[in-house]
Amino acid sequence: MINSNFLDLKREYIFPIIEKKLEILDKSTVINLGIGDIAFPLAPSIVQAICEATEEMGKRVIGYGPSEGYMFLRKAIAEREYTNIAPEEIFISDGINTDTGNIHELFKRDSTVAVADPAYPVYLDTNIIAGNKVHLLPCTEDTRFVPRPPSYKCDVVYLCSPNNPTGVAMNYQELEDWIAYAKKWGSILLIDNAYAAFIRSKDVPKTIYEIPGARDVAIEFKSFSKTAGFTGLRCAYTVVPKNTPFFTLWKKRQNIKSNGVSYPIQKGALASLGCLEAEAQVESYLAQASRIKNSLQNAFGGIDSPYIWWKTPQGLSSWEFFDLLLAKCGVLCIPGSGFGKSGEGFVRLSAFTTEDKARFAVNRLSKIDLH
Amino acid sequence: MINSNFLDLKREYIFPIIEKKLEILDKSTVINLGIGDIAFPLAPSIVQAICEATEEMGKRVIGYGPSEGYMFLRKAIAEREYTNIAPEEIFISDGINTDTGNIHELFKRDSTVAVADPAYPVYLDTNIIAGNKVHLLPCTEDTRFVPRPPSYKCDVVYLCSPNNPTGVAMNYQELEDWIAYAKKWGSILLIDNAYAAFIRSKDVPKTIYEIPGARDVAIEFKSFSKTAGFTGLRCAYTVVPKNTPFFTLWKKRQNIKSNGVSYPIQKGALASLGCLEAEAQVESYLAQASRIKNSLQNAFGGIDSPYIWWKTPQGLSSWEFFDLLLAKCGVLCIPGSGFGKSGEGFVRLSAFTTEDKARFAVNRLSKIDLH
Repeated sequence: MINSNFLDLKREYIFPIIEKKLEILDKSTVINLGIGDIAFPLAPSIVQAICEATEEMGKRVIGYGPSEGYMFLRKAIAEREYTNIAPEEIFISDGINTDTGNIHELFKRDSTVAVADPAYPVYLDTNIIAGNKVHLLPCTEDTRFVPRPPSYKCDVVYLCSPNNPTGVAMNYQELEDWIAYAKKWGSILLIDNAYAAFIRSKDVPKTIYEIPGARDVAIEFKSFSKTAGFTGLRCAYTVVPKNTPFFTLWKKRQNIKSNGVSYPIQKGALASLGCLEAEAQVESYLAQASRIKNSLQNAFGGIDSPYIWWKTPQGLSSWEFFDLLLAKCGVLCIPGSGFGKSGEGFVRLSAFTTEDKARFAVNRLSKIDLH
Repeated sequence: MINSNFLDLKREYIFPIIEKKLEILDKSTVINLGIGDIAFPLAPSIVQAICEATEEMGKRVIGYGPSEGYMFLRKAIAEREYTNIAPEEIFISDGINTDTGNIHELFKRDSTVAVADPAYPVYLDTNIIAGNKVHLLPCTEDTRFVPRPPSYKCDVVYLCSPNNPTGVAMNYQELEDWIAYAKKWGSILLIDNAYAAFIRSKDVPKTIYEIPGARDVAIEFKSFSKTAGFTGLRCAYTVVPKNTPFFTLWKKRQNIKSNGVSYPIQKGALASLGCLEAEAQVESYLAQASRIKNSLQNAFGGIDSPYIWWKTPQGLSSWEFFDLLLAKCGVLCIPGSGFGKSGEGFVRLSAFTTEDKARFAVNRLSKIDLH
């Protein structure tokens, strides 16, 4: 009676494996550049907003909020982050992984799905569970470590830019190529833009909706996790333009399956918009990304992204290099092969760390003896 | 390219319709016994716990929590609510509607699904979206307004006890019958136990796991929403016993698709366990349920439940009676037909109200002129 598609999940989900590896180590000696989690506490103004909202709930009945999120937050996001998106098109949720994991419900069974390889595992795994056929789009040195449109039709395409794990952001031209692809084949693009706050390059758009035609063919996922240190608070949002048939479906889906996100958390998310402390945290992560990347050879990404994609030396496999870095440098990374076949031969380093630890890691990595 | 099953959602989701009806009314004159939302602010000790946890996040990095929930909460629930459930079998989530809405992912396509009629709409709607065939189990005066095992096999059975909307709780015998049914046919029972805190009758178990054999065939859903005034905070949990093959699948599904529930909210949920103020709120709701029910003729439920299931007089339809109650008494209910075909000829009254308002409503309803 079970959904046997679960048995097709060949790969173990990498984050719990990494967590387990950490459990058996003396954490005080390891610099964790593995799991992409925040390194700074929550900004004071966000703490204050959440506490005030909670105290408000102790004074008056708030009750169920709207499934799609409170309008105060949706309006603030629309005003601050977009020029051509209406508040009604912004759906608040508890995480990009939740939404990218559930969005396939809107598409007809047997849709052809394309997923970057390597990629954040949720896109592939959730389509395996749903029993969908998935085409992998290799992201290699040849493709500048971003997925490129294939020559054949895919109904649904999952893209992540700035890309996780390769740390490279797609530029205007590359995203325009994807919009053209979607228009040509009648596809829908699902853009995971979790790392938008890290974009600094002038040729990289902050949102897919800067590209003409994107409102017709693209759904964008964004989060407060990395922008405002919200990983433990759970708040994100998904933009579904009214130009697509999916606006009505997603609204219906959310009305049926969700009672929205906690009121205090949404108030905290509101406070994070324009919060200077949160912006300073992102700047610090970017500085550590530069620091780490510039100290390495054959390292990619890390410019508009907190992630560095590091090619293993001497043909080592991802896991061999992982073990070597852990044993010889006490630095924890993530083996690239954990994100997909084309990730083999790379490891991902995360810049979600403090300046002290980044300097320490760089120092240890500089002394690595591969012989 | 869209999932055309969405087009089979014939019924509009009732809660947004009720919300809209409220929007155009002068709320000050209406007593809302409609939407089942809380009537009291959050208890002070819960407010304090959430604020303290938030302040903690401002001092040290908490980051991503476990997908399944923090062990401090899972352990406390296991100790307080169960005698034969391990903490690992308790999965924290943001709502029963989320989990009952997603649980179908674990079952193979074309499973035969049974849903009570009338029922909380999520069970039926999510199976329609998934394209599953659903059998309806009528809950009528003849069945004591609870679903009874059919004579044929259903792979998956959604049950709600104390039942929403009929307000009747299944007793030991009735639940034993369901366990026997599941054992006979190899079925899985999905028990929505959102209203467990309202159970007072001695012949009604507080959890399905009081029934022998339940660990083999039953998944139970519980929530802090109505127990502790958490409707706007979003915290619930699902018990998946290791005896079932679904333990591994649900754990995998949650690991892939969820990053858990906000840390401060889980701390608030912990504080709600055994919170005297929260218990007093439930007692008050139960008192209002008795008050309202005892003032009416042909009213059912309302004993182990905050809901009263009121038969319409003179053969009026649910909506006719809804309109009449609103126009002549200024009392808002929910038409029973909104919960399914067998709900026709009934309305649901909710006791989530204060004593003052309940007395006022009883007074208005006693003067109703049906002629």
